[in-house]
Amino acid sequence: MSSPVRIALDVMGGDHGADVVLPGAALALTRHPDIRFLLFGDETKIRAILARHPKLAEASSIVHTDVVVTMEDKPSQALRRGRKVSSMWKAIDAVRLHEADCAVSAGNTGALMAMAKVNLKTMEGISRPAIACLWPTLRGESVVLDVGASIGATAQHLVDMAVMGAAMARIVFDIEKPKVGLLNVGVEEIKGVEEVKEAGATLKAAEHPGLDYRGFVEGNDIGRGVVDVVVTEGFSGNIALKTAEGTAKQFAELLRGVMRSSLMAKIGYLFARGAFALLREKLDPRKSNGGVFLGLNGVVIKSHGGTDAEGFASAIDIGYDMVRYALLSRIEAGIKGRPRAGTSPDGDGSADGAASSELQVSS
Amino acid sequence: MSSPVRIALDVMGGDHGADVVLPGAALALTRHPDIRFLLFGDETKIRAILARHPKLAEASSIVHTDVVVTMEDKPSQALRRGRKVSSMWKAIDAVRLHEADCAVSAGNTGALMAMAKVNLKTMEGISRPAIACLWPTLRGESVVLDVGASIGATAQHLVDMAVMGAAMARIVFDIEKPKVGLLNVGVEEIKGVEEVKEAGATLKAAEHPGLDYRGFVEGNDIGRGVVDVVVTEGFSGNIALKTAEGTAKQFAELLRGVMRSSLMAKIGYLFARGAFALLREKLDPRKSNGGVFLGLNGVVIKSHGGTDAEGFASAIDIGYDMVRYALLSRIEAGIKGRPRAGTSPDGDGSADGAASSELQVSS
Repeated sequence: MSSPVRIALDVMGGDHGADVVLPGAALALTRHPDIRFLLFGDETKIRAILARHPKLAEASSIVHTDVVVTMEDKPSQALRRGRKVSSMWKAIDAVRLHEADCAVSAGNTGALMAMAKVNLKTMEGISRPAIACLWPTLRGESVVLDVGASIGATAQHLVDMAVMGAAMARIVFDIEKPKVGLLNVGVEEIKGVEEVKEAGATLKAAEHPGLDYRGFVEGNDIGRGVVDVVVTEGFSGNIALKTAEGTAKQFAELLRGVMRSSLMAKIGYLFARGAFALLREKLDPRKSNGGVFLGLNGVVIKSHGGTDAEGFASAIDIGYDMVRYALLSRIEAGIKGRPRAGTSPDGDGSADGAASSELQVSS
Repeated sequence: MSSPVRIALDVMGGDHGADVVLPGAALALTRHPDIRFLLFGDETKIRAILARHPKLAEASSIVHTDVVVTMEDKPSQALRRGRKVSSMWKAIDAVRLHEADCAVSAGNTGALMAMAKVNLKTMEGISRPAIACLWPTLRGESVVLDVGASIGATAQHLVDMAVMGAAMARIVFDIEKPKVGLLNVGVEEIKGVEEVKEAGATLKAAEHPGLDYRGFVEGNDIGRGVVDVVVTEGFSGNIALKTAEGTAKQFAELLRGVMRSSLMAKIGYLFARGAFALLREKLDPRKSNGGVFLGLNGVVIKSHGGTDAEGFASAIDIGYDMVRYALLSRIEAGIKGRPRAGTSPDGDGSADGAASSELQVSS
């Protein structure tokens, strides 16, 4: 059997902290008995809960921390207050120190990304990280990125995201050449921003061996699952994700409303309750919980802050897979052979552009 | 009784042309007997269909046109081939010539917007138009703009859209001070692009009498209906709209699937079929069909290309309301008293900025 996967948990993160994180870890452990946990947080609290989870206790080491990054902390506040001392920082730091293979936190996204960036730094050749999520579709799931790490991607950022997203998709879907699409708008007159067009031309010309570039996709194509990886800039990606979540909730609420609207509907509901349970299962947001930070020197997974143990376990599962199937070296390999965004200068004149052009040797 | 509302129809536009447009017009006429139609298209075809709609025939004049803008025409092609001669151009031209109060087309969005811009020009004080749609929410509907007219709005464009969207919302929802929100992302670290922040600060400081600015909203707030008007830039707006459409379809397909998954589910469906009919009605995209072009010297409505007569009638209905309740003069009044985007220079150095700064006298 291969060596265990060591996962660092920010036990204090999220709306419910240890009360969700530890039962979630216990659940993930039943599915992956080869996980070893490093638990960062209030030791007394952790020990009290571990008493009810002997198997988890056996698989875990505890590192006491006093400082908690709250859901309201701004990234700058979190760094000021929590650097080196918070459970969130320490979990990430364990990855940097190679004491853990991956960190999972349900703490606030901005703080987690800021700490991960400061502590782990971006990978060689990558100028900035992205957050990828698994998006439930009619055909299964797709990887969608960036859902909110950075705003305003250059063509090269988009190309890099295509490569990183494909590396993740190879693991999650176990396919050699994931289909990749660039999110764009369908109005002929304006057909996309320059960066998206340039990234599209670059990906098309490059024929990168690690991905099958399928051109532009529109918002309605995401849910149809026409590609395995949807690449977009962080502002539009975040808005797409939240809008889809909102629409799904809206639909569910409408459905609940009409099923209570008459006696016949209520009787129908009783007959069909197995079908409704199936629907709930298919739509269960907990199953696709876990945003993967891509482009850092380490694997960091962000769980939804308000999720329950089942949802947190899913976030651990995805971290486990990313480690077990070597996300980082797959990204490294992909980035080495990645296409460079065409004729136009890379980047936007910021340090990003300069940093990545130094690495152009490999293209 | 007030004077009739004169509506110019691009009879040849859309996937089905006259076969949908004319029955749609007949339907709208039953709801608004004071409409007079100007029909632009193939006269023989039109007369054949009008023979089955005597009331519509009575309320209509026909102008024969030979050229049809297809759904595949790029805006530039459409202008080259269709300028002055196509049914689409002629319908818009009737608005310019004050022969009609409004034009409705199911033709392709890019071509329609290009022709409308070239022919009608933007209103004084507005540097570019936007497309607003009615978005079904849990509380009813909201106005969302821009869903795809232009990409990359400046702070001033966003402020102008807030004012124009509020003018439209006052008509549609019959409220004096519509609640307005700016679409943004919820990740603390990056909290929005500069333009959105600046527009937010301007709207907050200005306390424009025509709208109640409520700050930033996120993608999931649209479906909840937390504000009456959601303002965003065209790229993200188009992606949000298409993503929501895709998610709704995905949900509906899942629901259909589970209701066929067992005998019990099928029996349940039979009992609850009234409830499902109600759900379909609530989700009927035809009822909110009709994108309103805002910021032009004339009212132009874009219908979905693939809609049916009921859907096209909805697009006519919204055009009717925009004319009857004086959209243009409401926008004019709003724009006169609109806030100017703060300290930073308006526009992006293009002609847009120059054009609107000339009009700063009224601020």
